[in-house]
Order: sequence, then structure tokens, then C-alpha cells
Amino acid sequence: MKSPICAMLGVDFPLLAFSHCRDVVAAVSRAGGFGVLGATGHTLESLETELAWIDAHVDGKPYGLDVLIPENLATGGAKGLTRASIMDKVPAEHRAFVGQLAETHHFTMPEERADSDAPAPFDPNLALEMLDVAFRHPIKLIANALGVPPQAMIDMGRERGVPVAALVGAKEHAIRQVDAGVDILVVQGGEAGGHCGEVSTMVLVPEVIRALEAHGKRVPVLAAGGIMTGGQMAGAMAMGADGAWTGSVWLATPESECSDVFREKMVAASSRDTVRSKSRTGKPSRQLRSAWTDAWEGPQSPGPLPMPYQSLISEPAIRACDLAAQKGDPAAREMVTYFVGQGVGLVDQVRPAGQVVQDFKMEFAEAAERMANLVDA
Amino acid sequence: MKSPICAMLGVDFPLLAFSHCRDVVAAVSRAGGFGVLGATGHTLESLETELAWIDAHVDGKPYGLDVLIPENLATGGAKGLTRASIMDKVPAEHRAFVGQLAETHHFTMPEERADSDAPAPFDPNLALEMLDVAFRHPIKLIANALGVPPQAMIDMGRERGVPVAALVGAKEHAIRQVDAGVDILVVQGGEAGGHCGEVSTMVLVPEVIRALEAHGKRVPVLAAGGIMTGGQMAGAMAMGADGAWTGSVWLATPESECSDVFREKMVAASSRDTVRSKSRTGKPSRQLRSAWTDAWEGPQSPGPLPMPYQSLISEPAIRACDLAAQKGDPAAREMVTYFVGQGVGLVDQVRPAGQVVQDFKMEFAEAAERMANLVDA
Repeated sequence: MKSPICAMLGVDFPLLAFSHCRDVVAAVSRAGGFGVLGATGHTLESLETELAWIDAHVDGKPYGLDVLIPENLATGGAKGLTRASIMDKVPAEHRAFVGQLAETHHFTMPEERADSDAPAPFDPNLALEMLDVAFRHPIKLIANALGVPPQAMIDMGRERGVPVAALVGAKEHAIRQVDAGVDILVVQGGEAGGHCGEVSTMVLVPEVIRALEAHGKRVPVLAAGGIMTGGQMAGAMAMGADGAWTGSVWLATPESECSDVFREKMVAASSRDTVRSKSRTGKPSRQLRSAWTDAWEGPQSPGPLPMPYQSLISEPAIRACDLAAQKGDPAAREMVTYFVGQGVGLVDQVRPAGQVVQDFKMEFAEAAERMANLVDA
Repeated sequence: MKSPICAMLGVDFPLLAFSHCRDVVAAVSRAGGFGVLGATGHTLESLETELAWIDAHVDGKPYGLDVLIPENLATGGAKGLTRASIMDKVPAEHRAFVGQLAETHHFTMPEERADSDAPAPFDPNLALEMLDVAFRHPIKLIANALGVPPQAMIDMGRERGVPVAALVGAKEHAIRQVDAGVDILVVQGGEAGGHCGEVSTMVLVPEVIRALEAHGKRVPVLAAGGIMTGGQMAGAMAMGADGAWTGSVWLATPESECSDVFREKMVAASSRDTVRSKSRTGKPSRQLRSAWTDAWEGPQSPGPLPMPYQSLISEPAIRACDLAAQKGDPAAREMVTYFVGQGVGLVDQVRPAGQVVQDFKMEFAEAAERMANLVDA
């Protein structure tokens, strides 16, 4: 396809696939898309293992790495924090609330070991060290998922000749990002899964493109938020986007990291079954509505903690629910949730990741033909 | 353009323009689009006047009428209600709250005359009588803006050979609508101005089309919500829509019914300056965020009343604010608001309605060419 982003990333079809699962990343890139591995949750060692695995399975095709470096964290700029070292900031009220949920929904919170050196969630310094690890591999893109990337990250990309992408949910953020030196903008509407703003993809994509042009810095734009089909990708590109950034659609693959229970919930869900909630990370992120998200909005809720503290309680709880639900417990199943966008309403089956890429290409071609027929006098 | 909707409506370019202003309706139809007059707020007499004016100014081009017949009203099915007859259902607390707002924002609530026979807002029987009036004119479409149209409305369209359209904000509603006999669906995302759901246009359009196909009743679909440019219209049609239904973009024309103050606010606003609020009609509708919408979400708010009662206080208050703001009062200006979608962020100037249609056509052609160049190997 003739899009500037294709040359930049070394692909023919500008479909970017964000996934925490190495299998998805490799399968998408092998099929002609561009897989982007989410680094969050990894240690330096496990990330090295994943990237080496991808190198061995990607047939030399390009792929990238996504880190999550928030601009604002309630822990400020403190370095080298461990989970254990910030655990005492979780109020007793919040522990008790999760304890009640565990009782009514039949899951068991794991004990936190006070001597554990597991890093605190969203550690910005760890993210930068991960990029060091990643640059030992032939990565072709680094992306930051939450706010303007730190200068060090932009410099790393510049030095290695690797483009730096960043997610934006508002026009004003787009201008700040390109002024900081970001090469590619992922313009993500509020229907997206994960951290997101409130403006829809249909509005935000042309609004950002127009603002970039007026600002004299029209970098390539990837449309994100709700895109689950090649028809939608074509729609976004007809509006001026240079490609698509996708996430939720890859969860409904057999390769993905999520549980079978969650995949079943995805197939059953309509677009109205998601919610934008702070209950997972402390910042607003879209996820499948479940007893977990409902509970944090309910009358007993002590209110979510700011990032990164909320993850200290949400991540182990959700993981424990997944395990209990996989064993067949219906009360635990009610709690099962994960980051997913409104596009979940377009999921009606689980398909292999390579197949999803092929379907995107076919649907894109159909949409282009539809458009050609419309204007063909 | 080769779209089934074009033959159905007798137009070349399937751009539908909803407006309360006869000038916009006539200008859009004359320019090759399809104007749809919003009947809400009219009496039978004033509607007759407007339609006769359109007939005299539309050069024989097709146009339509939109009524607002809610499926659920707090007044139930009672017939012939006047404003005066339901005014006593507005609690003293709500009157006092608006009285305070009037004081702090310098507007004067008009006195309601107890002997006035002005109809209650959203009277379904009045809406049906309006359709009788409309059928004395060469209308080519009747549309209902809120829920499944009553059987009488569908029968009227059937008898006259005029297609019946209805707005939907969720997949399930789409199925109910086509089962009831609706000919055209306006699939409206949550970014739209006015009454709307929460699912975005990008997701809802393909989700509804897929559901209609699975249901075996694929009626033409007009995409709505956030569409302010021909590029977005092309994007929606690349995804499978048969045309576009637009509203907010016509407010930023010199012809439109809104005040100069509101037009200035539109040009200044970004896509993040709207809010989905019950403060105008009692049902969730998207509008420009202002001191009015903020006040109803604030700590002093008694909470909005159900439809149709909230309109009894909101409409006179907003009208009074408009008048005071037009005279230059800054406190009244803070209150000025109107139904508008997130697409307001794409408004950077006021253009004549006919010019907007021409711009849509040009932008659509550019988008089609962009798409053709992308796939041209």
C-alpha cells in the first residue's frame, strides 16, 4: 500500500497490532502487519526472553515495542521503588473492600512478600531499561502509551534511527507530542480499550490531522479506537489516517494472553458492555464491565487509588478471579474483566491472529472497491 | 453517486441535513443534499408556514420532516396536555434552583400564563398531526428521532409511498426498528449532538450493519455522530454506510436558528467541550458544556426532571440566557448552550449552508481519490 508509514515501518499493510503476547506479535508481523509487544508487566529478563522468541519466529519481519511511561504518577519521580516498598500506602479501607469482594466472589488474594523486589507498577526507569534491552533486538518502532515520552526515550529512537510513536487522546496532546519530537502519533478515540480520553475516533482523527497541519508538523497518524475490521481501517484512512493501531481485536485470538473465560465474555459482549473506569489502574481506562468495575462504582466503594497504587490491589485480585473462574466458579466469573474497547461488540468468534490480518486485508480491499464503485459515474 | 439511498430519496449525494431552520433545509436540498426540517417546537400553523416557504425556495428538490416521538414519557399516554396543565409537576425545589441561576447569571425567566394553550413538550399526538400537515407538501422522508416510531407513523409513510427513517443508538434498537417496519436507519454514535447513546459511530455503524444482515433485513443505513466533513462521510461509507446524517455542522451557518453567541462558542470550542447531560430534556443528550450543564451536575443541583418536565424549565431559561447574552451580558453568556456533538471541534468558521454542501462534495471526492491511490499498485 502507498502510505508514508509503510516505508517508515517496512510493511505493505499499515495495520499495527498492540499485544502483550509474543505469539500475536510474531503472527501479525509474519502475516504482513506490524506487531508491537507491550512491555508492561515484564522484568528485564522476561522481556529479553520474549524478544529472543519473537526474533526466532518472526521470519525477519519488522516489529516494535510499547512501553507505558506515565507523565504523572502519585509516587512522583522516585526511582527503584518495589511493590513491597509502596504497599503500605494502600489504606486499610481499600484492603478491607477487596477482602470483602474476595469473600463474595470466591477468589483468594495472594500474600505480598515484604522482601520481594518486584518493581512497583509503571516504573518509568524500568521502562527505559526495557528499551535498552529492546535495542539489542532488531526492533523497528518504540511507542509510549501514556503521555509525552521522556526526552531520553526520544533520544534513544533518534540515535538508533528507530521511529518513536506515542498515543494521544486529545488535540492539545498531539501538539505537545510532535513538539517533543515524536515521529508517529497514535490518535486514539475514547471507544478504545485501555487508557483513553473521551473524544471519539471519528472526530479525533480529523481534528488532530487538521491541528498538525495548522501547526506545520504533519507526522504520520495511526487511527486507534474501535477498529476491529479492515472496513473500519479503510474508513479511518479515507478520513486521512495513514494506518491503524489496534489492540482489542487481538485478545479474541487463541494466541492471546487473556483467559478462556474472558474470550468467551468477549464473544458474548455487545459494544455497550464496556466502561471507562479508574478501578484497574487509577487512571481512566476502558475495560469490560464486570462485578469488579461495578463494585468500585457502587455505594460501598472507597474510590479507586491514584496510579500506581490501584494496580497493587487490582492486578492480583483480577488474576485471582481469572484462576477461580477458569476452575468454573460462577461468582469469580462475574468479576473477570480486562482492558477492551467498544469494538468488543464486533467480536463474534475467536480467530487465529494470522487469520485476523488476512481478514483485515480482504475487508480493506472490499471497502476500497465499495468506495470506487460509489464514485464511478 | 451509486447508493441505494440516492434512488430512494431522489438525490445524487446522500448527505442528509437535520435542521430546525427552513433556510438550511432549502439551501442543502438546492445544493444537492437532502434537508430535513425538525418539527419539534412548532405549532401546526407555524409548521405549515415553514413548509410552504421551503416549497417556494427549494427549486423542486426533495426534502423531509423529522418529528420527535419519544417511546417513553413521564406523562404517559395522556393526550392534549398543555404546558400550563403539567407545570404544577415541577417541584418548588427546581423552580428555586433555576431562580438562583437566573439571579447569578442575569437572565429573566418569562412568566408562564396559566391560561396558555401551548402544547406540552414532546406531545406525541401533536407530532402525528404535524405529519398530516407535512403530507400536504411534497415531502420525501419522514423521520423519528427518539425510539421506534408509532405504528400510525409507519402506516402514514407506507400509504403515501414515503420512506420512514428512525434514529438508533444501539444494535438492539436497530433490530426492533426494522421489525416495526422502518425503511432507513440513522445509526447515531454517542459523539452526536442531541439525544444519543454511548457507543461511538466508528463501532456502531458496522455493528448495526452486521446485525441487520444477520437478521435478514439490511435496510439502508445513514451514519450519524461527529460527521462534519466529506472526508468523514467517505470514511463512514467505506465502512458500509449508505450515506450520512448530519446536524451540528449546520448550526455553524449564518442561516441557522442558533444565536450569534452560540456560533462564536462553536468556533472557539474543541471536541472536549461537549457533555452528555439530562439537563436539557430529562433524557441524555449531548450539548455544549456551559454554566447551565455544570450547574445541574453541581452539588446544589436538585437533579434533572424526567422528560417532558425538564424542558418546561430548561427551554425558557436557555432562551432567556441567549437574549441576555446577545445584549452583551457576560454572566448570561456563560450559560449559553445548545445541542451539539463532539464534531464541534472541527468547526473553525461559519459558512453558508450551500457552501458546506459543496465542501462536503469536494472533501468526499478527495477521500475517494486518497483511497484509490492507496490501493493503486
